[in-house]
Amino acid sequence: MGKTMEEWCRFSLCSWHTFRGKGADPFGFPTMKRHFDDESDSMENAKRRIDAMFEMLVKLDIGYYTFHDRDVSPEGSTLEESNKMLDEIVDYLAEKQKETGVKLLWATQNLFSHPRYMNGGATNPDATTFAYACTQAKKVIEINHKLGGENVVYWGGREGYQSVLNTDVKREMDHMAAFFRMCRDYRDKIGSTAQLLIEPKPREPTKHQYDYDAQTVIGFLCTYGLQGDFKVNIEPNHTTLAGHDYEHDILVASKLGFLGSIDCNSGDPLLGWDTDMFCTDIKKTTLVMKIVIEQGGLHAGGLNFDCKVRRESTEDRDLFIGHIGGIDNFARGLRNAAKIIQDNVIDNMVKERYATFDEGFGKTVEEGTATLESAAAFAVKAGEPEQKSGRQEEYEMILNRYV
Amino acid sequence: MGKTMEEWCRFSLCSWHTFRGKGADPFGFPTMKRHFDDESDSMENAKRRIDAMFEMLVKLDIGYYTFHDRDVSPEGSTLEESNKMLDEIVDYLAEKQKETGVKLLWATQNLFSHPRYMNGGATNPDATTFAYACTQAKKVIEINHKLGGENVVYWGGREGYQSVLNTDVKREMDHMAAFFRMCRDYRDKIGSTAQLLIEPKPREPTKHQYDYDAQTVIGFLCTYGLQGDFKVNIEPNHTTLAGHDYEHDILVASKLGFLGSIDCNSGDPLLGWDTDMFCTDIKKTTLVMKIVIEQGGLHAGGLNFDCKVRRESTEDRDLFIGHIGGIDNFARGLRNAAKIIQDNVIDNMVKERYATFDEGFGKTVEEGTATLESAAAFAVKAGEPEQKSGRQEEYEMILNRYV
Amino acid sequence: MGKTMEEWCRFSLCSWHTFRGKGADPFGFPTMKRHFDDESDSMENAKRRIDAMFEMLVKLDIGYYTFHDRDVSPEGSTLEESNKMLDEIVDYLAEKQKETGVKLLWATQNLFSHPRYMNGGATNPDATTFAYACTQAKKVIEINHKLGGENVVYWGGREGYQSVLNTDVKREMDHMAAFFRMCRDYRDKIGSTAQLLIEPKPREPTKHQYDYDAQTVIGFLCTYGLQGDFKVNIEPNHTTLAGHDYEHDILVASKLGFLGSIDCNSGDPLLGWDTDMFCTDIKKTTLVMKIVIEQGGLHAGGLNFDCKVRRESTEDRDLFIGHIGGIDNFARGLRNAAKIIQDNVIDNMVKERYATFDEGFGKTVEEGTATLESAAAFAVKAGEPEQKSGRQEEYEMILNRYV
Amino acid sequence: MGKTMEEWCRFSLCSWHTFRGKGADPFGFPTMKRHFDDESDSMENAKRRIDAMFEMLVKLDIGYYTFHDRDVSPEGSTLEESNKMLDEIVDYLAEKQKETGVKLLWATQNLFSHPRYMNGGATNPDATTFAYACTQAKKVIEINHKLGGENVVYWGGREGYQSVLNTDVKREMDHMAAFFRMCRDYRDKIGSTAQLLIEPKPREPTKHQYDYDAQTVIGFLCTYGLQGDFKVNIEPNHTTLAGHDYEHDILVASKLGFLGSIDCNSGDPLLGWDTDMFCTDIKKTTLVMKIVIEQGGLHAGGLNFDCKVRRESTEDRDLFIGHIGGIDNFARGLRNAAKIIQDNVIDNMVKERYATFDEGFGKTVEEGTATLESAAAFAVKAGEPEQKSGRQEEYEMILNRYV
Repeated sequence: MGKTMEEWCRFSLCSWHTFRGKGADPFGFPTMKRHFDDESDSMENAKRRIDAMFEMLVKLDIGYYTFHDRDVSPEGSTLEESNKMLDEIVDYLAEKQKETGVKLLWATQNLFSHPRYMNGGATNPDATTFAYACTQAKKVIEINHKLGGENVVYWGGREGYQSVLNTDVKREMDHMAAFFRMCRDYRDKIGSTAQLLIEPKPREPTKHQYDYDAQTVIGFLCTYGLQGDFKVNIEPNHTTLAGHDYEHDILVASKLGFLGSIDCNSGDPLLGWDTDMFCTDIKKTTLVMKIVIEQGGLHAGGLNFDCKVRRESTEDRDLFIGHIGGIDNFARGLRNAAKIIQDNVIDNMVKERYATFDEGFGKTVEEGTATLESAAAFAVKAGEPEQKSGRQEEYEMILNRYV
Repeated sequence: MGKTMEEWCRFSLCSWHTFRGKGADPFGFPTMKRHFDDESDSMENAKRRIDAMFEMLVKLDIGYYTFHDRDVSPEGSTLEESNKMLDEIVDYLAEKQKETGVKLLWATQNLFSHPRYMNGGATNPDATTFAYACTQAKKVIEINHKLGGENVVYWGGREGYQSVLNTDVKREMDHMAAFFRMCRDYRDKIGSTAQLLIEPKPREPTKHQYDYDAQTVIGFLCTYGLQGDFKVNIEPNHTTLAGHDYEHDILVASKLGFLGSIDCNSGDPLLGWDTDMFCTDIKKTTLVMKIVIEQGGLHAGGLNFDCKVRRESTEDRDLFIGHIGGIDNFARGLRNAAKIIQDNVIDNMVKERYATFDEGFGKTVEEGTATLESAAAFAVKAGEPEQKSGRQEEYEMILNRYV
Repeated sequence: MGKTMEEWCRFSLCSWHTFRGKGADPFGFPTMKRHFDDESDSMENAKRRIDAMFEMLVKLDIGYYTFHDRDVSPEGSTLEESNKMLDEIVDYLAEKQKETGVKLLWATQNLFSHPRYMNGGATNPDATTFAYACTQAKKVIEINHKLGGENVVYWGGREGYQSVLNTDVKREMDHMAAFFRMCRDYRDKIGSTAQLLIEPKPREPTKHQYDYDAQTVIGFLCTYGLQGDFKVNIEPNHTTLAGHDYEHDILVASKLGFLGSIDCNSGDPLLGWDTDMFCTDIKKTTLVMKIVIEQGGLHAGGLNFDCKVRRESTEDRDLFIGHIGGIDNFARGLRNAAKIIQDNVIDNMVKERYATFDEGFGKTVEEGTATLESAAAFAVKAGEPEQKSGRQEEYEMILNRYV
Repeated sequence: MGKTMEEWCRFSLCSWHTFRGKGADPFGFPTMKRHFDDESDSMENAKRRIDAMFEMLVKLDIGYYTFHDRDVSPEGSTLEESNKMLDEIVDYLAEKQKETGVKLLWATQNLFSHPRYMNGGATNPDATTFAYACTQAKKVIEINHKLGGENVVYWGGREGYQSVLNTDVKREMDHMAAFFRMCRDYRDKIGSTAQLLIEPKPREPTKHQYDYDAQTVIGFLCTYGLQGDFKVNIEPNHTTLAGHDYEHDILVASKLGFLGSIDCNSGDPLLGWDTDMFCTDIKKTTLVMKIVIEQGGLHAGGLNFDCKVRRESTEDRDLFIGHIGGIDNFARGLRNAAKIIQDNVIDNMVKERYATFDEGFGKTVEEGTATLESAAAFAVKAGEPEQKSGRQEEYEMILNRYV
């Protein structure tokens, strides 16, 4: 379809799960040891992990990577110290990028792990913490620009409430909007053209996260006049946690012009938390890639493996197998989607289903000239509408032929 | 607090569950027989049901009622016939209103029960059905105006999808927006000042309903430029089905200026469907009434009992007990909420929690003059923020004293 | 694998969804009209529906069917009248069976649709209703015997509670056990060898159904000493509603020796009610058929299409397409499962994983001779256990090769 | 009602959440610092924490405590070393018990936190790990006996599967049964009379835990002939995660004679994980205490605060407020429950509802002499049963008067 598989997919490795995750969970200690990680907070260790990441990127021939500021570089005892160490790491990353040709898909700031952010970053009731969050965000915009990162991502893991009793929801949303405006302004000021992306999630770790799902974020952006500056980064594991189908947020965001990038993982619909699994369902990868093709590709975005191997998958080979499986499944999805679009059977059926809006009264609805009165006149003349089967079973059977 | 309990609550009876519901469910036939209903589709029967409704309104001293066009009046074999019967019923309702002093809180159109709407009303792929839906909506705006209805409600039960495979989601949302614009224009044209209200629900009967929750609706309204003309009617049973706390949508809608009215029922958080129970949890009614007081009352809106007795509660007295319990529980909630606000303990604690945004750097954030650079300068100078407990257990303990 | 596809699958049509279902849902009227159904309660109509069912069975070359007493035959004004009509219908069914060679997989009694059962059948607080339920159950055992039905199914849709406040849970469970004992005794008395099957479901239409899931039922049977006489009929749509994976109840029931038969449909994991869809996920049909092969087939059981076309799929062809898709998907599942078992890669990996229980201390655990003391002695000598990866990603990748 | 509040409630502090929990969650680092904990693994630190625990027990006048082996004592580099340290700690605990009069409600073994248990303890595919688990269990039986612990609890947090693909479910359940038998035998052997308790939970940290809920455990015990030796310890937060009402498992376990003890916390029905909150809902504590009174108290069991303050509640006072709130709420529940039982309004209504089973045909059902034939004879004679309302709204209104 006029692009290589690589161009359509733009796969990306993430530094956190893959190079920092060690299998801890709320009921258990870490299970994994990596030869490249001595579990110290030293700069040497940080660089060794980066070496390992770039080795894996090259071995798997993946073109992009992503990181949080605090994944790649240690937290110092002061902001200045943290930033200084980060600068050194950024130089190191720049070198590795040059060496390997790998690019930065996006950088992001971790505003949720440190205890200072327990009550939120951009929505913290305390202005000093808000300022601290801003400082991290500022630095990320800068280093992302320096490293040629194509996007900056904002995931508001602690931007929400645990209880409405102690929370001024309106004020917190206003502060969040202020934060986003400040980020947008600063990006523009330093001449960065990185696409800004908000990543929705309904809950966990907070009880309610303000960026609940794609449409909530889009509504928020419109409410605060930020719709021209931000798009969304969709993680389907978050979508299903919000009660929607795997592909729902990707679809809705795409159709409304807000789909920026995808964290291509999968959750378990029967579990109430983020499992961040590799997607193994070809039907789902097919539907996602169909949407991606239909919007002409992900542009500055990509398919980022925000996935982790299971806590019990403790060997290095599990890490490779997980990613290879993930790549294969999206590649198969892409191929299926291309075939579906080329055959044009399903899309033709859908188009036919809406044909009455292509002419006559239906067309006036789409053109915005219909009124309730013109509708009533038409309805009275048309009489009882003809019943038309939705044929869902047939659509599903046809789709099954492709996967 | 300057208003009577009646003015704060503005209770309303609904005609559908209470006077048309007979206890059928997906696995069973109706269980209830009402002396006032011979189960025929006749006009006499329709009027008898109306008589019973007004008798109950008077007996319970409830000041408002609500209806769907097809609850109060039979469906004829043509639109004209349906409308003619409806006109007769509306005259009858007008008489009863005059007789009793009861007012119409809102009317709405049923665009989901008839098979013609199986694929939606305003989002039906067929333009003739869309026109049919418009015709019903037009009539409802007219009769609501005639009866002095203070709002018109739009619940899009079938406006959504069962499967993305056969659905053009973008086109359907555009049509829905067109429909709302047409309704708004017609309301203005005939000189009605009724508040237009959209009622969110996440799913059921569709797999996904476009009006998923309060913020999705608000986002939709902003996206399509309709935010000045519509508010929301929140039903907490729908809120919990969307994965939010009972009071969440009421709170968020209120704080964003979109809370129009409330369907004051309750669901079961462990069941995946709309149970439409009377609310029996005083803590919840307290939180709701606190929000209502804080926004100065519901204005044109009210507390509508969109509730039904259990299928096994087959006696007339169950109907009375259910409503009396509902009224009592919201009245107790109102009293508790008033006490909480007067005591000002909780609100003071919350205000104190955000105090750093009332001055200095925090104030510049709220005023919109802060930048990432001013934030960074402040943060570096301020150093590590002081840790402040969220004290949720204390808030909960204080709240428990009031309920 | 020594059997034909037909012998492994033993597909069955159900009379209720397919020949009585018309698309009504809690928010809408029926949408489907069938040429063979005039919607009357007459015996002629009942027979016409039976003709249509056998026509479909023959056309799709399906060997079995299933029914509820009240699906195939009208309810009279008295028990005697209902039974008399049922007798006539049973003769008609016997004739059709003879004519076509189609067999009865199972019959069951409808103890949930009639208002008399609103508070349950076998667990109704009223002894007269309990007796009524027994009478229907007695008749079904008889007619099932007469028609050569290989099983009798008990689905306790109303056997549970809506509220614990008005319910004596212990007494109701005791009554349910009494009911099952009475059924077992009567089956034996009339010389029937039909397998008795309980079908678990967690909720809907009740808030809590006593037969929550497979293990709850197995526990109930063991508690009341009925474990030798009953097996379970598993419907995966119910399994996922109970919070388990699609194949979980089938797996657990099979391994514990209780899997009798399967209602081979599928639910939507994001919806909180029974959608009774045809299964379109080949990975799931593969896992199910692997379990079926491993237990040597379903014996007296089968794969019953307790599925319905979507409410919007209103044409007769949708009915055929739905069933054909269902058959294809389980046939593909069977083929995949056979290949997996023949290749023996996955099973070998699993066997290897548990190899330490095949010898030494592990073997004494399985033989029942190990004690905490022998274990402690072994553990102290063995030292820290070697870490062994669970390799889930690899298992999933291998499985994906087969589907 | 013949007992003091203390005797009915038997409150207990837990050592893990309260004295080891520091607020870490899957997305964030610990937030709490305790003056009594230097975060070292030293014996001194362990004893300081114990001092703090007994200080709190005395200050709050709570009579019982509970612990895991690894909460109270560090893990050594070998089993022997761990046990040696544990012995020293046990002596210290014995001293503190003597000093304060506080008793041990139960001890338990942590078979889920250490990486060696990532694939389970009693259900680990590796026999060496199984033996390791046995050794911990053996030690706990011994020290519990020494400390006069009234129960031993088994929570199988990792006894389940993450994927059925790599799991032999049957073999794992057999091993779990073997483990329980070995524990029972050893308890008997050393002359301990501690009640053995299994604590159900549906999932988390595993995808599926074998001890899903109360009835699953009871079924498991019956299947493996262990029903005389084990009871259950119910945590309502686990009950709601399994899809049941807060009080369901407590009720069912009690009525079936298996309720041993209660972990008196609460979850959030809209969150899919264990939040372990203090219960703040008086209606729920009332229903629980009513069941407790009805079974004559908890006997060897108690109300154990397996609760934690929110991650954001970082001050010591939050810890006290949380527990005081928990105590108050159950005390209020007890008082309400006693009043409900004394008034006997609700129970009389329920008794009346089942009155037809107290005589005539109904009585033969309860006595076990009814047959389908006697039922049919009775039903034909009795005719259509009289409809009786379930009156749920009335029950709820009456209950609301008490809370």
